[in-house]
Amino acid sequence: MNYPNGRKGTAQVLGKQEDSNQKFSNRGMTLENDINATNDYYLAAELAVIHKKPTPVQIVKVNYPKRSAAVITEAYFKQPSTTDYNGVYRGRYIDFEAKETKNKTSFPLKNIHPHQVEHMKSVIRQNGISFLLIRFSQLEETYYVTGDLLISLWEEHLQGGKKSIPYSFIKEHGRLIPFHYQKRVDYLTIIDQLHF
Amino acid sequence: MNYPNGRKGTAQVLGKQEDSNQKFSNRGMTLENDINATNDYYLAAELAVIHKKPTPVQIVKVNYPKRSAAVITEAYFKQPSTTDYNGVYRGRYIDFEAKETKNKTSFPLKNIHPHQVEHMKSVIRQNGISFLLIRFSQLEETYYVTGDLLISLWEEHLQGGKKSIPYSFIKEHGRLIPFHYQKRVDYLTIIDQLHF
Repeated sequence: MNYPNGRKGTAQVLGKQEDSNQKFSNRGMTLENDINATNDYYLAAELAVIHKKPTPVQIVKVNYPKRSAAVITEAYFKQPSTTDYNGVYRGRYIDFEAKETKNKTSFPLKNIHPHQVEHMKSVIRQNGISFLLIRFSQLEETYYVTGDLLISLWEEHLQGGKKSIPYSFIKEHGRLIPFHYQKRVDYLTIIDQLHF
Repeated sequence: MNYPNGRKGTAQVLGKQEDSNQKFSNRGMTLENDINATNDYYLAAELAVIHKKPTPVQIVKVNYPKRSAAVITEAYFKQPSTTDYNGVYRGRYIDFEAKETKNKTSFPLKNIHPHQVEHMKSVIRQNGISFLLIRFSQLEETYYVTGDLLISLWEEHLQGGKKSIPYSFIKEHGRLIPFHYQKRVDYLTIIDQLHF
């Protein structure tokens, strides 16, 4: 299957020989790649329109050898002021951030920027659907944590609470995201449970 | 008033001496600046959360003299596959593109990319609110054109129809966006009329 953006479907790239081992087939794929493949599938199947935002870059110098081939020769990465992914599902606004950790026992809150938490609060105030996807890459598990829960953990953390969220807490209060070949991080099933 | 991102409000920058001449006070501001100022106001007033997406850039080379100061030394502009602005208003997904023309009699359709029209179709299918803002900079007028209308004009154009939308047509079938000092492109008033 070819997706609208010309990328090949991830499932196809992995090949059929891995069908017998779901765990293994997820190995080595980054969370970002898996989410992009999932979003491509959602888009092609007309289930949702969700995209990753481009990396914010401060452009300083551009050379124009021809107008059609402008080269950026000096630019810097900017701190994102919002989350990475947003879009629409059944009329509702969807907005989330995705983070991966190699840590097996907890998720360090330093992975989240204060601006992003402020953004999540604003989104929730506007009745948007806000959440965080956390992948424990060593455990090959990806969890859905609601924006509300993340915000309350963040507030506790600011008032001298824990600097990280224990894995056991996420396992209990988050929701494990099912894995499918074409919907590698099928977060819409969780949204359906929580919001529809 | 200082907005969350540290930029000064546009109205403040313009100063009070221009109050008596609304037309003049808008001169020289780009549509993008006006929309950003409007979105800053909406965000600060907790009316809506709408941001411009970063310019999509293909990063080729990065130097890391120190980790904290990575310099991008080769990158290229990419064609945007979606629209420039999106976000949430009263739970609904908002998605739009904004274009400015110096032409006084029509809006050339070549300003819109086929990918963007496809994106608008997908957004409408998901029950999102999709539209195009067109500014006639010489006339100092900004119009709201619904995604549905743009798509039908685009389809006509592909089938050998006009290459541009006449100003008179936009004046009749679009909606003129009111100008306020803090809400320089107050498109939410139009969304309220059309969707709430």
